[in-house]
Amino acid sequence: MVYTAQKWIYARAFDGEPKPEDFRLEEELMPAIKDGEFLAKAEYLSVDPYMRIYVQSYPVGSVMIGGQVAQVLESKHPDFLVGAYVFGQFGWRTYAICNPTGIETRKPYVLPDFGTSLPRSLGIGTLGTVGNSAYFGLLEVCRPKQGETVVVSGAAGAVGNIVGQIAKIKGCRVIGIAGSDEKCQWLKEIGFDAAINYKTADIEKELLNAAPEGVDCYFDNVGGPIVATVRKQMRHRGRIAVCGTISMYNGSPIQVQDPQRDFVWKQLVQEGFSVHRWTDRWFEGIGQNLKWLQEGKLQYRETVTKGFENMPQAFIDMMRGGNIGKAIVKV
Amino acid sequence: MVYTAQKWIYARAFDGEPKPEDFRLEEELMPAIKDGEFLAKAEYLSVDPYMRIYVQSYPVGSVMIGGQVAQVLESKHPDFLVGAYVFGQFGWRTYAICNPTGIETRKPYVLPDFGTSLPRSLGIGTLGTVGNSAYFGLLEVCRPKQGETVVVSGAAGAVGNIVGQIAKIKGCRVIGIAGSDEKCQWLKEIGFDAAINYKTADIEKELLNAAPEGVDCYFDNVGGPIVATVRKQMRHRGRIAVCGTISMYNGSPIQVQDPQRDFVWKQLVQEGFSVHRWTDRWFEGIGQNLKWLQEGKLQYRETVTKGFENMPQAFIDMMRGGNIGKAIVKV
Repeated sequence: MVYTAQKWIYARAFDGEPKPEDFRLEEELMPAIKDGEFLAKAEYLSVDPYMRIYVQSYPVGSVMIGGQVAQVLESKHPDFLVGAYVFGQFGWRTYAICNPTGIETRKPYVLPDFGTSLPRSLGIGTLGTVGNSAYFGLLEVCRPKQGETVVVSGAAGAVGNIVGQIAKIKGCRVIGIAGSDEKCQWLKEIGFDAAINYKTADIEKELLNAAPEGVDCYFDNVGGPIVATVRKQMRHRGRIAVCGTISMYNGSPIQVQDPQRDFVWKQLVQEGFSVHRWTDRWFEGIGQNLKWLQEGKLQYRETVTKGFENMPQAFIDMMRGGNIGKAIVKV
Repeated sequence: MVYTAQKWIYARAFDGEPKPEDFRLEEELMPAIKDGEFLAKAEYLSVDPYMRIYVQSYPVGSVMIGGQVAQVLESKHPDFLVGAYVFGQFGWRTYAICNPTGIETRKPYVLPDFGTSLPRSLGIGTLGTVGNSAYFGLLEVCRPKQGETVVVSGAAGAVGNIVGQIAKIKGCRVIGIAGSDEKCQWLKEIGFDAAINYKTADIEKELLNAAPEGVDCYFDNVGGPIVATVRKQMRHRGRIAVCGTISMYNGSPIQVQDPQRDFVWKQLVQEGFSVHRWTDRWFEGIGQNLKWLQEGKLQYRETVTKGFENMPQAFIDMMRGGNIGKAIVKV
């Protein structure tokens, strides 16, 4: 059987916001697979903020980077059997050939059994990189204790909403910062104690109302001036986990008024992390999030764009904050 | 015996650089000591950057804050015998009465035996708060490994020069950033591998020359734009210890161009600390620094101002970077 893949090319270097003209759709006739390889067909593709900056490490003309849930159609590898659903960093393409041997980080893997009631798309969401970023970033970097106050920015985004929910499971008071009233409303529905619309509210004042005794943990997805605003209200020995800085991905660095002395006075820690630090505990994270989903302690929400041809638009919309929960594309 | 203390009052709220008119000299007739108290006479007083901002927590009219090495002249406390030399946070005053009971942090203590060849003034320097800030801040917050590259700013200052020397003892490559050619020359004399005069050099370029493979640890004493400059050249999983931010103490916060994304890409950690975190290990730090001094592995240098009446000027000079090594006042 011969397959013709569609693939989105990073066709023009990003300048500011990604634009439709920065992408080009191409076709590729897939060759026959060799020993050790398998061929998979994309079912769900992920669009994530990190792509905006990470793809800039690759030459223009490369296939856009990203993960997907795909089904194995042909295989000459004993671990990836025909019919299996896998997660792989195959890029923005409908068919991919992969030889997993020698891949160390971001290795493809067969999806664990999610049970009958959960969609496979969670493999690029709560039960994948996104869910693990929330799980490990919150629990290993912020290390919240019961009764502490946790603030999360980008709270209605893919990672942020899970962070807040896990913090609630751990007995914390949770405040989300998000970009619309609709997002804030949803955050309260899934258990956040308070939600602040940063586009309309005085964040400093609202945060003081919501956390009069200060903030113990801040999980940052956005960067920019919000970090300094939250930092001002942090308590002694507060912990800041930096997962992403989406507000700064499109442009030149913003001038930030940075009260550095807070670091010393309050003995704060700020730590950036990549989820791949916990590659050896990958299925612990997925397993725990799956358990919480099955117990009804964790909710998920997806913003689904249909059609591979709409991937650039899905990405552009996500970068503008158009998604609630995880932004995905269904082929 | 009746003693009349001289004391320097924080007479006017600081506005920008401290000025002579911000201080007022007063006298105080010392009362008789009560049970549990002792009376001590200052021998060496410390002037340190933290005073510039910490004293602002006290009302104008308070005695200026600070530590000193003093001798016990009268005592009704069994642990502080007449004749003993003590370290105490007695403020800018020539005589002090202290009841140590109930003081938890910054508790006064009898100086350990420094041996015959080392001056008691080290009790406010290498063998006190300053030495412990270097010892614990470097080893517990930066956690340098043998062969790593350590950068320290304010390197010719009280804490910075000790940080660099301890890093050398631990087998690191050490680069100092300081404010004059004379300071840089001294840093090289005491073993720094390189020293950069931030007032005349292109720090970014010089740092790249001195550490072409990047920086593992940054011990920051100064804050301001240098932090972002060093951060750019940090390696994966680099560690930043923030001990002080003297460049920002005199004025309104500086606008800093902060490449926050470095935090995520390189998984950096930045942690502020106060040395009082290690109160329970205080004499471990002093003991180790004493051993290194006695072995000749650690050098010390003091900038001594004579006369209690010159304390404000010693403080003003120190804030302007006039000192090399520890700035002290000899009564």
